[in-house]
Amino acid sequence: MRIEELETPIGVVDLDRLSANIERFQTYLDSHDIDNRPHIKTHRIPAIAHMQMEAGAVGITCQTLSEAEVMCSAGIRDIFLPYNLLSKAKLRRLMLLSRRAKISVTADSARTVAGYAEAAAQEGTVLPVLIEMDGGYERCGVTTTEGVRELARQIDSASHLHFGGLMVYPSNPESNAFMGESKMLLAQDGLDVERVSGGSSFVLWQAHEFTEMTEHRAGMYVYGDRNLVDAGVMTLDACSYIVLATVVSRPTDDRVVLDSGSKSLAADGARQSPGHGLIVEYPDAEIFKLSEEHGHVDVSRCDRKPEIGERVSVLVNHCCVSNNLFPRIVGHRKGEVELEWPVLAKGW
Amino acid sequence: MRIEELETPIGVVDLDRLSANIERFQTYLDSHDIDNRPHIKTHRIPAIAHMQMEAGAVGITCQTLSEAEVMCSAGIRDIFLPYNLLSKAKLRRLMLLSRRAKISVTADSARTVAGYAEAAAQEGTVLPVLIEMDGGYERCGVTTTEGVRELARQIDSASHLHFGGLMVYPSNPESNAFMGESKMLLAQDGLDVERVSGGSSFVLWQAHEFTEMTEHRAGMYVYGDRNLVDAGVMTLDACSYIVLATVVSRPTDDRVVLDSGSKSLAADGARQSPGHGLIVEYPDAEIFKLSEEHGHVDVSRCDRKPEIGERVSVLVNHCCVSNNLFPRIVGHRKGEVELEWPVLAKGW
Repeated sequence: MRIEELETPIGVVDLDRLSANIERFQTYLDSHDIDNRPHIKTHRIPAIAHMQMEAGAVGITCQTLSEAEVMCSAGIRDIFLPYNLLSKAKLRRLMLLSRRAKISVTADSARTVAGYAEAAAQEGTVLPVLIEMDGGYERCGVTTTEGVRELARQIDSASHLHFGGLMVYPSNPESNAFMGESKMLLAQDGLDVERVSGGSSFVLWQAHEFTEMTEHRAGMYVYGDRNLVDAGVMTLDACSYIVLATVVSRPTDDRVVLDSGSKSLAADGARQSPGHGLIVEYPDAEIFKLSEEHGHVDVSRCDRKPEIGERVSVLVNHCCVSNNLFPRIVGHRKGEVELEWPVLAKGW
Repeated sequence: MRIEELETPIGVVDLDRLSANIERFQTYLDSHDIDNRPHIKTHRIPAIAHMQMEAGAVGITCQTLSEAEVMCSAGIRDIFLPYNLLSKAKLRRLMLLSRRAKISVTADSARTVAGYAEAAAQEGTVLPVLIEMDGGYERCGVTTTEGVRELARQIDSASHLHFGGLMVYPSNPESNAFMGESKMLLAQDGLDVERVSGGSSFVLWQAHEFTEMTEHRAGMYVYGDRNLVDAGVMTLDACSYIVLATVVSRPTDDRVVLDSGSKSLAADGARQSPGHGLIVEYPDAEIFKLSEEHGHVDVSRCDRKPEIGERVSVLVNHCCVSNNLFPRIVGHRKGEVELEWPVLAKGW
């Protein structure tokens, strides 16, 4: 069966490109002696996680407990969960998970550390906790070296916690100073930083410039998307994930409508290019608006214009959120369908 | 069990408000002799569709074949699918569906009509086809009265198609002229317009001002969201759908982070208010950025600021796309959990 026979919209993955992307990045990290701990939130597919492990990853990164539970059930036993887990229910699930896999987590507040300490003591296990530091992007993370020191002391003094190191997102070279100063301060307390976890696909090939890093978390490099192409991180012909769509309407000469909207392409904006994804066959077209099941496309700049019924390939702006909208993803080689993967690791 | 005990993020529905919303709008349409054909893409939950039918809806509207297949299996047998269905695979599914339910569809091109004609003739059934007209919002739809006339003639002349009427989105009063002129032109061809289908929750209480309309399609009125509140269509205390979230970080005094991001709140922008949803308990806070599993909140304008571990209620910008991200939705009355509904009618 050819992908041209699949009903649209559907997310498809070029398996040759997928393997090549996994190999290429693993080789790069290996050459710089940086551990690879890929983020599986991009694909949420155990089979791809296993491909990453077989290529040399030391473990995986999950963003939710549900992702971790599915991946653990699928046989992956070294999981990093860089998230502040707070509620009793989530801490209980974390402890159950820690019986079956090597788990590490992060915290950026005394409140989070206290929860881990109590849960681990009750479970009678030792939980490695890394401190999340602010990478300068107004996300989670401790913002001062003194804050890092306080939290490290709290972790180190808890009977059932182990100070596991430092974590930052994104890991731009600009984070080197904050990281280096924090390490010096911790050294004064006799605390060794055994692991510095960095990440972001946008600094994929600059990972080695963040010299403090011992392991890298990246998700999107397996697929690629328009934002990564715009950023110069991946070339269009390396991108493995595409949404196949069909032109269902052409209300005017200059406007066509696809059967893919915010429920398949996702409404996340592009960082650079205008619109909601690149139509590979019509690079001059612009998906200027999404409704839920329609993508509205300006084709006024196209010499040749797509016809009703024509199939096109959309490189989405953000692969992680689009992949999440599909119940299953089709894998192919040169257009020949080889498999279907359920997108299993969903939820919280 | 109280909703305060549920793990977050989770979408919850206030069942009393849900019922009241369904009743209120049905009563309004009844008073104007307009048929109610609610759009189930908002909730994708058969039980809610049945509530709408029991309140007096003449049938439902679905946006994808999968939605229609699930709803039909759940016992709903009058389904309108206002979508250009083109491929052989989709036309085959449509015909199978037409054996089990009263189905009507739309077309805005000769290509779409030709596909319906062939499929219906092969099946030996008569398929009602309405013509989709452009409501002025650059979506699908025929843009000229002459275009409407041509398509109506094509439908009428096909042996197994029935000209089912006209459809428009949104159905602003401004559409009256286009609709009225089209009807006059069709009357010259001896074609009666038995059904005029309009819709949009943003013109909910102005439905009667679109005087040509015989039936109304609206989805969001059952839930409500920030866009509808901003538009003055619903009040905050009528909104039944909320995402419960937890504050997982407070990196600075003026910034907190929720455990709800674009994979639960959805990244669809607000039409009016800034940010990605209203935190009901902190109306002065602004969710200024979403990452996938985090909502980044500016609380600088709040007198009292949320603490780490605190639970909040988020009125999302667009309820349909948020609801779609959850595998199940919890129903409650005054905070007491009463049921869980799987969000069944997903996919294409």
